[in-house]
Amino acid sequence: MLTAKGAATRRRIIEGAAAEIRENGIAALTLDDIRARTSTSKSQIFHYFPGGKEDLLLAVAAREADRVIEDQQPHLGDLTTWQAWQDWRNAVVRRYEQQGVHCPLGVLMTELGRSTPAAQALTARLIEQWQAALRAGIAGMQATGEVDRRLDADRTAAALLAAVQGGVTILMSTGRITHLEAALDTSLALLRQSVDGEPNVIG
Amino acid sequence: MLTAKGAATRRRIIEGAAAEIRENGIAALTLDDIRARTSTSKSQIFHYFPGGKEDLLLAVAAREADRVIEDQQPHLGDLTTWQAWQDWRNAVVRRYEQQGVHCPLGVLMTELGRSTPAAQALTARLIEQWQAALRAGIAGMQATGEVDRRLDADRTAAALLAAVQGGVTILMSTGRITHLEAALDTSLALLRQSVDGEPNVIG
Repeated sequence: MLTAKGAATRRRIIEGAAAEIRENGIAALTLDDIRARTSTSKSQIFHYFPGGKEDLLLAVAAREADRVIEDQQPHLGDLTTWQAWQDWRNAVVRRYEQQGVHCPLGVLMTELGRSTPAAQALTARLIEQWQAALRAGIAGMQATGEVDRRLDADRTAAALLAAVQGGVTILMSTGRITHLEAALDTSLALLRQSVDGEPNVIG
Repeated sequence: MLTAKGAATRRRIIEGAAAEIRENGIAALTLDDIRARTSTSKSQIFHYFPGGKEDLLLAVAAREADRVIEDQQPHLGDLTTWQAWQDWRNAVVRRYEQQGVHCPLGVLMTELGRSTPAAQALTARLIEQWQAALRAGIAGMQATGEVDRRLDADRTAAALLAAVQGGVTILMSTGRITHLEAALDTSLALLRQSVDGEPNVIG
């Protein structure tokens, strides 16, 4: 267990490394850069990250994954009205617009090796958290009759997450946000329309 | 202009390099491997690819991009019934199931540098071709009244493409095809249902 002060130092190192990677990329990153930026000593860094650079990069990746979720709050955690969904949609677009073609999490995952167990566990956890929040939102809208109750909430959440992910992937290769916007707007419009069709579909 | 024989040799070199990358990856790839595999000489390779390895890799990437579209045919070019959409959906899932976590085009793009003008042009062309085929399919279904005419066909195609792309991205990080299937099935189910809702939405 870390003391409160220890936890704060560890956090400061992670945030410093994250900022360094966001500003200058990862290719030329050294522990010395991070040391200088966070006013810590080499022995402090190895105290908190015994595995050295790779250990630290994994912690930074976990931080960036948390940030993906945080940047969608408070909307993602409270998708109870269509207005909340729209606010969430806007927060997602804004986040990725600001981020542009440089995805710090993607850079970190590539550096750590996407197929390593640690990177895969981190990706799986992010997907699961994100999808659970969308699933809760969809299930809530189904409970109030605003989304077709015959849809599988978890699968619909998976589809929505894939649409966002694809929009982001295309943004990172083209620099254009059009696909992310189209993916979100079309998914939400079709979801919203789904209940209106119910009587006709069943009847 | 290449003669027919020249074009065939060039094609053989590209196919050989593509197969080599699919089998053994790109990290350790040398022109000698490709030469040996395709029974060509070094001077032949430089005759067809004056820029050497990078030139060749770009041609292989273009070939892999064409293959992305080809593997969805004949369905992608003839999305005129819901059965055709379902067949297309199955072809996409099958393709990526077979490919698994190793995407030759992704590997090539990373090697060439995603932000280089040549790689970006290639990505843009693939997105455009793919989206145009989906757009034609949606517009056709709108013409026969099977998809809501108020949807913007191009934006809906962009959304569908993003959903597929996201499913593939998630497959490549997790090894699981669930998101791709959910993305396709949910998008198609909602599209299919869109028209039934029309009278209620307007009325």
